[in-house]
Amino acid sequence: MDTPLPAIAPDLAIMARGLFDALRDSHFDGTGITRETYGAGETAAMRRVEAIARAAGLRCDWDAAANLIVTLDGTDPSLPAAACGSHLDSVPQGGNFDGAAGVIAGLLALLGAQRAGPRARSLVLFVMRGEESAWYGRPYLGSSALFGLFDPAWMDLPCLQDPSLTLRVAMAREGADVASVAAGTRLVDPTALSHFVELHIEQGPVMVARGVPVGLVSGIRGNHRHPHAKAVGEAAHSGAVPRWLRRDAVLATADFAMRLDSTWRNALERGEDLVMTFGILTTDPKQHAMTRVPGEARFTLEYRSESERTLKDFQALAEAEALEIARERRVRIDLGLPVRTPPAVMDGRLLALARRLCESGGMPHEVLASGAGHDAAIFANAGVPSAMVFVRNDHGSHNPREAMDFNDFLKGAAVLQAVLLTGAEAVGR
Amino acid sequence: MDTPLPAIAPDLAIMARGLFDALRDSHFDGTGITRETYGAGETAAMRRVEAIARAAGLRCDWDAAANLIVTLDGTDPSLPAAACGSHLDSVPQGGNFDGAAGVIAGLLALLGAQRAGPRARSLVLFVMRGEESAWYGRPYLGSSALFGLFDPAWMDLPCLQDPSLTLRVAMAREGADVASVAAGTRLVDPTALSHFVELHIEQGPVMVARGVPVGLVSGIRGNHRHPHAKAVGEAAHSGAVPRWLRRDAVLATADFAMRLDSTWRNALERGEDLVMTFGILTTDPKQHAMTRVPGEARFTLEYRSESERTLKDFQALAEAEALEIARERRVRIDLGLPVRTPPAVMDGRLLALARRLCESGGMPHEVLASGAGHDAAIFANAGVPSAMVFVRNDHGSHNPREAMDFNDFLKGAAVLQAVLLTGAEAVGR
Repeated sequence: MDTPLPAIAPDLAIMARGLFDALRDSHFDGTGITRETYGAGETAAMRRVEAIARAAGLRCDWDAAANLIVTLDGTDPSLPAAACGSHLDSVPQGGNFDGAAGVIAGLLALLGAQRAGPRARSLVLFVMRGEESAWYGRPYLGSSALFGLFDPAWMDLPCLQDPSLTLRVAMAREGADVASVAAGTRLVDPTALSHFVELHIEQGPVMVARGVPVGLVSGIRGNHRHPHAKAVGEAAHSGAVPRWLRRDAVLATADFAMRLDSTWRNALERGEDLVMTFGILTTDPKQHAMTRVPGEARFTLEYRSESERTLKDFQALAEAEALEIARERRVRIDLGLPVRTPPAVMDGRLLALARRLCESGGMPHEVLASGAGHDAAIFANAGVPSAMVFVRNDHGSHNPREAMDFNDFLKGAAVLQAVLLTGAEAVGR
Repeated sequence: MDTPLPAIAPDLAIMARGLFDALRDSHFDGTGITRETYGAGETAAMRRVEAIARAAGLRCDWDAAANLIVTLDGTDPSLPAAACGSHLDSVPQGGNFDGAAGVIAGLLALLGAQRAGPRARSLVLFVMRGEESAWYGRPYLGSSALFGLFDPAWMDLPCLQDPSLTLRVAMAREGADVASVAAGTRLVDPTALSHFVELHIEQGPVMVARGVPVGLVSGIRGNHRHPHAKAVGEAAHSGAVPRWLRRDAVLATADFAMRLDSTWRNALERGEDLVMTFGILTTDPKQHAMTRVPGEARFTLEYRSESERTLKDFQALAEAEALEIARERRVRIDLGLPVRTPPAVMDGRLLALARRLCESGGMPHEVLASGAGHDAAIFANAGVPSAMVFVRNDHGSHNPREAMDFNDFLKGAAVLQAVLLTGAEAVGR
């Protein structure tokens, strides 16, 4: 039997609100919130969390990647620890909740559990570094280091905002043991964790549109990206060449996009998880003109899904449509090989547990895929059964207009706490 | 009864071939042929035509716009003259036949008629200036001046290749009376001409594809142009926003293009004359990205037809589809008001005459619309019954690869000559 869904204690809620406010005030940059990856702002935010945890008697450790590990020790050290966490860096001029909400919810969970008295299983909060790719072009730096997955080549990445600074220097400056991280030393053993659960604000608009405060994540979408796709026909005089003699690259691309749009709609109707985007599309500025049948169009194509199978099927269908268009319109569509990022599967037992907890607690919720990547994907792909709880948030993320209602946060934090405390049984670890 | 279709005399054909070669040799610029509008190359080419005409005893006059008028005087000056002509300028690095073929064919017609002995009706060859817009941004300068349609504001247009030179200065330098032209003085009375016929190379690929040497032009397409059309939706995260919450400007534009493509196909199946081109299409370089649902796409839309009614109908259908897409995809498509150029109707009686001449002469031919504009459109819209004869030409025009077979030219020249000599009766003037 699952435990019920206890609310966050009022005094802890007040502490959490104060902590959000303090982070916002400390890291407001005039436009938004800036806590740079492996930088002073990120570290200051982590120290603020550490101070509260220490004051409450929780154990605080800094690992070789300078992640902060907060532990409520259990009475039986032989049991795998139940884990939660998120990151404390932000994009430049970002919002206050992306990352921080997950850390503060985890802190609430440990403090709440502490009050309930001794328990056998340890609880761990990972306060992670460098989740945002906005600073060094690579995401998940802190969580990758946890599992020995930090590529040593990343050490030489320049800071996009200050190319004279490398990630190596930034990490060392904030206290990381760069040699150990670069050597791929594993900082945590996946089997030493029963499961991992991360709370995060939703970065899309689904929950606002649906009117639900809490989201349960079914999976983190992987993607296939075609950054250099193009349609190649033949330029021609727009007045003098009739339809049957044209090889129009724009109409071929439009045809291709509409066929994939149809394929996409069909996949959704079958219940598959899929999004598709032609983010960039342009005729050739060196030769295009209003009175010229366009001979070439370049575009990007990205599709994302929780399911590797769906991604592969969609790629095959896209390639088939491209061949069909070549035949019908005499325009070659060249997608190039996709750059692939695999999906991360969230643990079905933890998802089912979270649903039962919400249902028994009368909590309005919705199951949805995460379109953006998260540290939880690193845990899941390292073999730790993982779950994610989303909190409703307006205006997307990575901008100062992020808008999470504090009451929604408390609801999500209650779900996180319950999954943290009871998830180990659900996964049998 | 129509006259038959006499071939061009062999010695005149040899003269014509030599004249083409001389023009090519004189105006080869290292890459292609360059005879600048109201420039030395154009004038030199005109003087070469004048020299041949004078030597044969034809009357040569230069009008106020510095057009050359070659006349074979008839015995009855009260009859409206039968007219033909074309231009002698070229685009920069263009081909040798665009324009020159029509002038040389007209010269052959006058010289051929001269040999047949005195005739009642005068024949006139207009050797015109400045048909190409490549030099001053405006086409039909010489023919517009003929009918008092030269906008005085054009005098201040800078040469695109040499902005320190204005059209006024260039015209004066080549002998034009700029004050008279700017005043809109009509240089020729439309009622003094029975009809006008122009031979020109085809600038599209239709006749090569169809395998016919001679084309009879049913009309010169007008057009509607939308140079600043756009689709406005909303940018969003490509991973986190599901299909039902997107307002994707690229998919909306693709949908719009495919709907118009369908409308176009339907119009062709009904026998209407129509071409349609999205020449420029681009997402916003300042904000587009592979992982961003595009919030805006800008494009140009041009459609051309011989029929004003078809243009208006197509515009109405395009606007209706734009509204439908706004409803279905929540993306506003803003076409803006079109810039309109009216079609020029070729005289049906002259076209019928030309068809009969070709049929009785066993000349393979095809009736087609002209997608590009021509001086004949100015004559037609000024009220002179007009016709055009196209000659098969590979690789389009406005480039050095123009490829007109000389035997095809002689066939077209024979048709031009016959229509010039017998067209007045067909139109009853």
